Amino acid sequence: MTYKLAIVGFGTVGQGFAELLQEKRKYLKDTYGFDFEVVAISDPLKGSIYEENGINLKEVLSLAQKEGKIDGYKRGIKGWDSIKTIKETNVDIIAEVTPTNLESGEPGTTLIKTALAEGKHVITTNKGPIALFYRELMELARENRKLLKFEGTVLSGTPAINLALITLAGANINEIRGIMNGTTNYILTQMDTGKNYGEALKEAQGLGYAETKPDADVEGWDALAKIVILSNVLMHADLKVSDVERKGITGITLSDIKKAKEENKRYKLIARAWKENGRVKARVSPEKVEEDNILFHITGVNNAIQFQTDILGCVTITGPGAGRRETGFALLSDFVNIHCSLIDRCCEK
Amino acid sequence: MTYKLAIVGFGTVGQGFAELLQEKRKYLKDTYGFDFEVVAISDPLKGSIYEENGINLKEVLSLAQKEGKIDGYKRGIKGWDSIKTIKETNVDIIAEVTPTNLESGEPGTTLIKTALAEGKHVITTNKGPIALFYRELMELARENRKLLKFEGTVLSGTPAINLALITLAGANINEIRGIMNGTTNYILTQMDTGKNYGEALKEAQGLGYAETKPDADVEGWDALAKIVILSNVLMHADLKVSDVERKGITGITLSDIKKAKEENKRYKLIARAWKENGRVKARVSPEKVEEDNILFHITGVNNAIQFQTDILGCVTITGPGAGRRETGFALLSDFVNIHCSLIDRCCEK
Repeated sequence: MTYKLAIVGFGTVGQGFAELLQEKRKYLKDTYGFDFEVVAISDPLKGSIYEENGINLKEVLSLAQKEGKIDGYKRGIKGWDSIKTIKETNVDIIAEVTPTNLESGEPGTTLIKTALAEGKHVITTNKGPIALFYRELMELARENRKLLKFEGTVLSGTPAINLALITLAGANINEIRGIMNGTTNYILTQMDTGKNYGEALKEAQGLGYAETKPDADVEGWDALAKIVILSNVLMHADLKVSDVERKGITGITLSDIKKAKEENKRYKLIARAWKENGRVKARVSPEKVEEDNILFHITGVNNAIQFQTDILGCVTITGPGAGRRETGFALLSDFVNIHCSLIDRCCEK
Repeated sequence: MTYKLAIVGFGTVGQGFAELLQEKRKYLKDTYGFDFEVVAISDPLKGSIYEENGINLKEVLSLAQKEGKIDGYKRGIKGWDSIKTIKETNVDIIAEVTPTNLESGEPGTTLIKTALAEGKHVITTNKGPIALFYRELMELARENRKLLKFEGTVLSGTPAINLALITLAGANINEIRGIMNGTTNYILTQMDTGKNYGEALKEAQGLGYAETKPDADVEGWDALAKIVILSNVLMHADLKVSDVERKGITGITLSDIKKAKEENKRYKLIARAWKENGRVKARVSPEKVEEDNILFHITGVNNAIQFQTDILGCVTITGPGAGRRETGFALLSDFVNIHCSLIDRCCEK
């Protein structure tokens, strides 16, 4: 079995995914018995390629890295936009990895809708469409009997969505809480060593953990998108972005950190969803976490989620929360899981 | 869709599973759209029932608890042994929950083989058959196009096997390590507060965490079975029980614990599998764990596993490692996942 893939959006994550696909081709064949070709890549800034026999990933990755453009690729058709790429190439699966926009959800939402309507499976790491239009998109997937998978929208490739949906199937999740943003956790961890907010932020920026304009992370928007997704997917909620209380970490001073330390506590930016009077509520805010909670010990860019379930009590997963390859891996695992669903077997090694 | 189930073995876990099935009937129907009937229960000590219209679980659980026997159940056929139950009842799925035997794997292995050969799916929490005959049993399942699922053999219902197989699909697991036995972790945690081994063991026995004859736990056999299963299922190993170095916690003294404490370390019974010269090796032994490792902070009966992967680095899961309902839940999640595989969709809520 050979799947044809298109990668729509060829930034950090799209390239990370392409890199993993290239490295893992033999592993996927040996372990799961399938092969693939990436036949199309489309990016509004870097250009696009449609090559029905399969694009040489090594070549195209090298072009993207050296020239910042993929137009120079020697074979195939150039210049198709993402919609044309989805509609007119004969692909089975679309990897949608355009940038997150939490206001409009675009361009991702339109791309995902188009792909599902055209009968393609979709894997995405784009928080915008899933945070804003989860139910509508799943309904469209169901109508078209296609799969929409989005593990990478929360905690990059660290299992979060699939962990809860598949491996906790049958459990009721009554509360979700966790450290879902690595940038802020890095900054708070650095402040814990005595640096002030500005110094810690600068350091995070220097290491590539924080953007020049760091608001999406430090004001809690990124964590907010994630808790909305988790609430709606795992707790039957129907939350909108505007329903969630949000407070970032910019108001936390070194003196707050020191006071917490004296109480044996640590500030963490906690995203939290819980049930209250039969409704799901969610909040993102800095909380003082006690030492006997595992979240206290999650430091640096690491992330963690705790699922409070009816039968198992608290189940905690921790791992990386971001990164080119780590997020690319979410797409890879979604891809493998689509294969396993299609061949009607569980994933076996 | 209505599945017919048989529960073979009606001890703690079998009853825990029946309890959850009874409680979760409406949830399963509402969430996943399927119903079920338990039509047979068979246990060599407690008796057996075959009632093709479905056994009343509340009644049978009350009998088991009050009388220690289920023979007094009013309807259905009595007296069939487990093999006859598997062969002559018209069930779709067998829950095999007989006691673990790490030497012969019996009676579980014969029961699982019979069930697969008869065209039944199997869910089990029995470590013996999976630790001893994993490859053979999976081959038999494949030949018969049936599913064999065994999440509950490791960390009760806390996702471990399915976490790695499904949600980490596509990753290479290079090392597995963790605290996989709650009894020993409870004892070590108590020793950390100043109790000696004998006192801590007695306390664990009083709370039902340790057996009167505690060897399976304290000598490391239980953790050994689990690391053999994880190695063979997740790391392509072909380890036998006798291949694994094993050292329990009975030799650890209060003075060892105190010395470790002075170094800011804690003794934990660590089960570990790693690659060495292209082969997988495994070991169970007490290790001094440093404070910056999450395993240091896993206390009491809690368990945790760390998967060292090629792409994500370290992913850690923690949750309960034992318990009537917690282990029963593993069977429930396997059951739901079989349903999802059969209807060719991912689990969606």
